[in-house]
Amino acid sequence: MVCSIDLIEKPQLYNPILIEGLPGIGFVVNIAALHLIKELKAKKFAQIFSSSFQDFAVTTENGGALSPINELYYVKRENGKQDLIIWYGNTQALTTVGQYELCGKILDLAQEFGCHFVISIGGFKKDEAQPIPAIYSTATDLDTMKTALDLGTKVMVGHVFGIAGLSIGLAGIRDIKGFSLLVDTPGMNPDVNAARYALRTLGKYLNLDVDLSKLEESGSEIKNILESFGIIRSITEEKKKEEQQLRWFI
Amino acid sequence: MVCSIDLIEKPQLYNPILIEGLPGIGFVVNIAALHLIKELKAKKFAQIFSSSFQDFAVTTENGGALSPINELYYVKRENGKQDLIIWYGNTQALTTVGQYELCGKILDLAQEFGCHFVISIGGFKKDEAQPIPAIYSTATDLDTMKTALDLGTKVMVGHVFGIAGLSIGLAGIRDIKGFSLLVDTPGMNPDVNAARYALRTLGKYLNLDVDLSKLEESGSEIKNILESFGIIRSITEEKKKEEQQLRWFI
Amino acid sequence: MVCSIDLIEKPQLYNPILIEGLPGIGFVVNIAALHLIKELKAKKFAQIFSSSFQDFAVTTENGGALSPINELYYVKRENGKQDLIIWYGNTQALTTVGQYELCGKILDLAQEFGCHFVISIGGFKKDEAQPIPAIYSTATDLDTMKTALDLGTKVMVGHVFGIAGLSIGLAGIRDIKGFSLLVDTPGMNPDVNAARYALRTLGKYLNLDVDLSKLEESGSEIKNILESFGIIRSITEEKKKEEQQLRWFI
Amino acid sequence: MVCSIDLIEKPQLYNPILIEGLPGIGFVVNIAALHLIKELKAKKFAQIFSSSFQDFAVTTENGGALSPINELYYVKRENGKQDLIIWYGNTQALTTVGQYELCGKILDLAQEFGCHFVISIGGFKKDEAQPIPAIYSTATDLDTMKTALDLGTKVMVGHVFGIAGLSIGLAGIRDIKGFSLLVDTPGMNPDVNAARYALRTLGKYLNLDVDLSKLEESGSEIKNILESFGIIRSITEEKKKEEQQLRWFI
Repeated sequence: MVCSIDLIEKPQLYNPILIEGLPGIGFVVNIAALHLIKELKAKKFAQIFSSSFQDFAVTTENGGALSPINELYYVKRENGKQDLIIWYGNTQALTTVGQYELCGKILDLAQEFGCHFVISIGGFKKDEAQPIPAIYSTATDLDTMKTALDLGTKVMVGHVFGIAGLSIGLAGIRDIKGFSLLVDTPGMNPDVNAARYALRTLGKYLNLDVDLSKLEESGSEIKNILESFGIIRSITEEKKKEEQQLRWFI
Repeated sequence: MVCSIDLIEKPQLYNPILIEGLPGIGFVVNIAALHLIKELKAKKFAQIFSSSFQDFAVTTENGGALSPINELYYVKRENGKQDLIIWYGNTQALTTVGQYELCGKILDLAQEFGCHFVISIGGFKKDEAQPIPAIYSTATDLDTMKTALDLGTKVMVGHVFGIAGLSIGLAGIRDIKGFSLLVDTPGMNPDVNAARYALRTLGKYLNLDVDLSKLEESGSEIKNILESFGIIRSITEEKKKEEQQLRWFI
Repeated sequence: MVCSIDLIEKPQLYNPILIEGLPGIGFVVNIAALHLIKELKAKKFAQIFSSSFQDFAVTTENGGALSPINELYYVKRENGKQDLIIWYGNTQALTTVGQYELCGKILDLAQEFGCHFVISIGGFKKDEAQPIPAIYSTATDLDTMKTALDLGTKVMVGHVFGIAGLSIGLAGIRDIKGFSLLVDTPGMNPDVNAARYALRTLGKYLNLDVDLSKLEESGSEIKNILESFGIIRSITEEKKKEEQQLRWFI
Repeated sequence: MVCSIDLIEKPQLYNPILIEGLPGIGFVVNIAALHLIKELKAKKFAQIFSSSFQDFAVTTENGGALSPINELYYVKRENGKQDLIIWYGNTQALTTVGQYELCGKILDLAQEFGCHFVISIGGFKKDEAQPIPAIYSTATDLDTMKTALDLGTKVMVGHVFGIAGLSIGLAGIRDIKGFSLLVDTPGMNPDVNAARYALRTLGKYLNLDVDLSKLEESGSEIKNILESFGIIRSITEEKKKEEQQLRWFI
């Protein structure tokens, strides 16, 4: 199997933009993606499972068992705005091969629904929290890079690990354009402030009406969800090990 | 190949319940599953081999060579009781991908025989043996969770690693319900007492007539079988390494 | 690809016995297999490559580049004696999955040529060289085990790692019988003496006319071949690491 | 997917020679291959992606995102000289299986375009830089080895790791001949001098008109490209770890 897709619905989407929101440093992107899903009342239309996800179940506070999973949600928008596909989940794949399979399948699926643009979000590990975190970008091409810089981002220098980097890299060798938004974060706890800045920059590009005043509140709710998933501790511990080898900025 | 199934017989089963019984901490589930197979005169109907099992042969005291293997047994029951499928073996798969393949194949097969319910059993590592070990549960859904709690279990908090967790997690995303029974055990030796409590709770749910008075005796017999398989030492050593990274409660 | 077979010739074989001769501890089996190939003028009929072999070339003293490879040779015998297939090579596969694929493919192929019996040879690590090394056996079934014991072997207790064990284990779940011959060896250098005892026991079973008086001479020739392959040092080093985890007796 | 090829053009080539130029110790081969591509105005005709490449994007100084990639370029030559295929890239595969798949696919493709000869280039780790580095060879066969020695190379002794060795080893078991050029290098920085000697020897064999007077200049340009790819630091660090286990001379 490696990677299987369970399609719940086949929505008609207008030139949708894929927004990558898998867990990474500071859970910036996870908070941002969950907030978008809630605020925009996004609808789940696909579930993705990979045999390269961890082989365990995580429990909720009620004893429910949850599998590692990725999901796709869509948001239909009016007035000629492009629709959105939000790629949300509680894990990335454990192996390189699994990451390629996962990212390739999601991009295949997004392209079937007419997608030509992808935005990945990530945390960029800093030693201390920044009151106004900087946002770094990399893009599939120089025109798109200019668009990202016009949003107030800086040029990313170095490697962008994991799905945040792979999605932009693989997009560049398909008929897809896109950029990454990598936000400064100390990275150890769900970082609501970094998520706020990510969503502001994303909102500027997407012309989004997301109410960010509720983010703090919604952020701690999200923190609770993540903690009951049990993944916060284990992911941050894994990260610590990996950081010893290479700087990490999913 | 990865994972191949050798079907010995195609039994007609009535709404069977799959009981997962692979080796884990304290061999609780292995003892319980073997005891069930013996007491209920369960019949083997399938053998499963995976290229993600270890690449060795284990020897019996007579010099016989045994491969790592998983097996399915069935028990037909009367008076409208649901039939049983017992998933027994001397190993789990070595890799995450192998675990997913193995669990997916077994669930496929169980579903072909009409299964809609799975129970996984495991040990939950405690530092000291408990005279009356507690049993923790996680479930595919809150109704089933309530059923498990009504049997006297507590809510499991955290991760359930290996097949014990994966089987419940993957069940939840198929048309299968189920719960885990995770029994306190110090985990280093075959733990007959923990197996007794697992079987009592399982028996309560399944309305089983298993004679547990013979368990001690049958437990040391099982211990001999496991030792001649040669897997007790190596699995407990592997576990020790893994526990250094993460708490482990297959 | 994983594992590909290049069939050079399709010999007609009479009920052939497969003799496993891949490198392991003490190179006992490698020496024995090469000696058999030379003395019996065995003909190569298949080459097997696996993407789970090491990704390097080894150089000969003339600068020739050799890939990791497995080969099958056949020996036709007269007077109603069973023909032989000798499984020779300069490596085993690096991963568990690779070992299963390799062993499965070879057994498939042997069965196509009518094989119903396999003998694997290996070294059994002892701290000191034994003037008369003991030979241990494991077998697919108790009748075959009795045959092995009648040759003067002892009952093997424990795990038989690698292809030596896997070939017997996998044979047992196919329509193939067989046994292992595991010879005492200190294991660090090509052990001609252990190979002599392996060949004597093998010869007794196979009713073979192999001239063992030339083995010492032919053994050092074989040692030179192995050294020019460059694999002696690296395999013994690998073994040292593995032995720290588990006793090793391919 | 594992390994996918994106064919940009199907050039008609005359008996082309495949020149392997992936990153390795000292980046000797990478510098040499890039210099050839520039000086000979080689045209890219294929892109190769593997799910065994690293799962990240590397950024350029302008913020562009680049995926790990391999590429094939061709050079058409006149006066009856054999055409060239240059195999260039910014990475090798991360796993043994990935290396076999990658090398096998490239050799398949080269053979489709009529290739019967492969030359791999590599660095051979020395503790100190040599003013006139020696070049070592291994070859698919003794005739080709003689050709390599006539170019002034010495006999390589030992293992040739990675694609440099695998390409010659796998060529030897196909209808392809070839040799390796392994140049002395301290290995930690892009080694222009070693690349010069590699190109001189290569040029002697290929009867090439490459202007090497510009190599120093073009070498530092190449160094800048490699640094903006961000791969110099990480590959040399990886190497350091690997060297602790085994001497490394891609």
